[in-house]
Amino acid sequence: MHASEMRFVGGATGAWRVHSMRAIRGETLGGGDRIAQVPAGQPLPPGMWTLRGVPSEARYTRASERDALQAVQPPLGRPAASFAALIPIRKSPAWWALAHDERRAILEEQSHHIRFGLGFLPAIARKLYQSRDLGEDFDFLTWFEFAPEHASAFDELVAGLRETPEWAYVDREVDLRLVRVA
Amino acid sequence: MHASEMRFVGGATGAWRVHSMRAIRGETLGGGDRIAQVPAGQPLPPGMWTLRGVPSEARYTRASERDALQAVQPPLGRPAASFAALIPIRKSPAWWALAHDERRAILEEQSHHIRFGLGFLPAIARKLYQSRDLGEDFDFLTWFEFAPEHASAFDELVAGLRETPEWAYVDREVDLRLVRVA
Repeated sequence: MHASEMRFVGGATGAWRVHSMRAIRGETLGGGDRIAQVPAGQPLPPGMWTLRGVPSEARYTRASERDALQAVQPPLGRPAASFAALIPIRKSPAWWALAHDERRAILEEQSHHIRFGLGFLPAIARKLYQSRDLGEDFDFLTWFEFAPEHASAFDELVAGLRETPEWAYVDREVDLRLVRVA
Repeated sequence: MHASEMRFVGGATGAWRVHSMRAIRGETLGGGDRIAQVPAGQPLPPGMWTLRGVPSEARYTRASERDALQAVQPPLGRPAASFAALIPIRKSPAWWALAHDERRAILEEQSHHIRFGLGFLPAIARKLYQSRDLGEDFDFLTWFEFAPEHASAFDELVAGLRETPEWAYVDREVDLRLVRVA
């Protein structure tokens, strides 16, 4: 197991209460009132489902984009950020069969994923975990944290992304909204 | 576990006899006279070490390069290809901290990794397995197969790559040369 593997367990325990769970595309996840974030090396609580991912190198971000992001991106764990979202996504075989430059062109030059997301910083903190090489059913897990007053901005962010050409390649997506309770 | 995970086990069994094992950079692997290739779902034989990897999407190859490769790349398992090499590699934290365009520029525009490798096709068959997100000690495992008369071409390929700017970021590399015995 990767030393930085993160596990998200849906069940009866954990610091985050599930406010809503909605299947955007494909099957939903099987229930759970709370989400526990469990780092590698800590025992998993019982749960109805577990999603695993690892922080990994950026697959598309250019140096200029990384610098622009780093200048404004907030850390996780801000006291005011009592709302969170966990959005696991799987992309289609057609996406993965594309060459790197074809995927990059769809993601950024056509869909402006990085540039559009940048407009929501520093309100929304974000961390991406890669799951595809682990054999998980989802390819990525994205975790977001924000204050309640930025909930509508977050809605705007995900709605905007879902209208892009990139999203034509998403074949499973679940949107969990969470509220910190511990 | 990923359904396509491949495991390379160094020990007393397997279809490939170890002709030589040489640490190019960093620690070597601990012995083994034979290499067994064991797909996911098959039991692992006892061994002195096991390396795991998964076939994954190409991280740098552009569409034009993919098409050029696909036009000439041979399959694994050719009857005449009784020689093989297994080259596990780990790159440095400095490499992984680079943005995607920086890594691409070093790999291809400065080091000509893809273009140089293309010159050795179809003599040398190649398959890349990704290991980094699995938490393995190596980041990639590359498996090569070729006929005995192309052994010197293979030496030229790996020697050429090791002189490139990309290789300044390699912090562990082991070179195993193998002969098919089953």
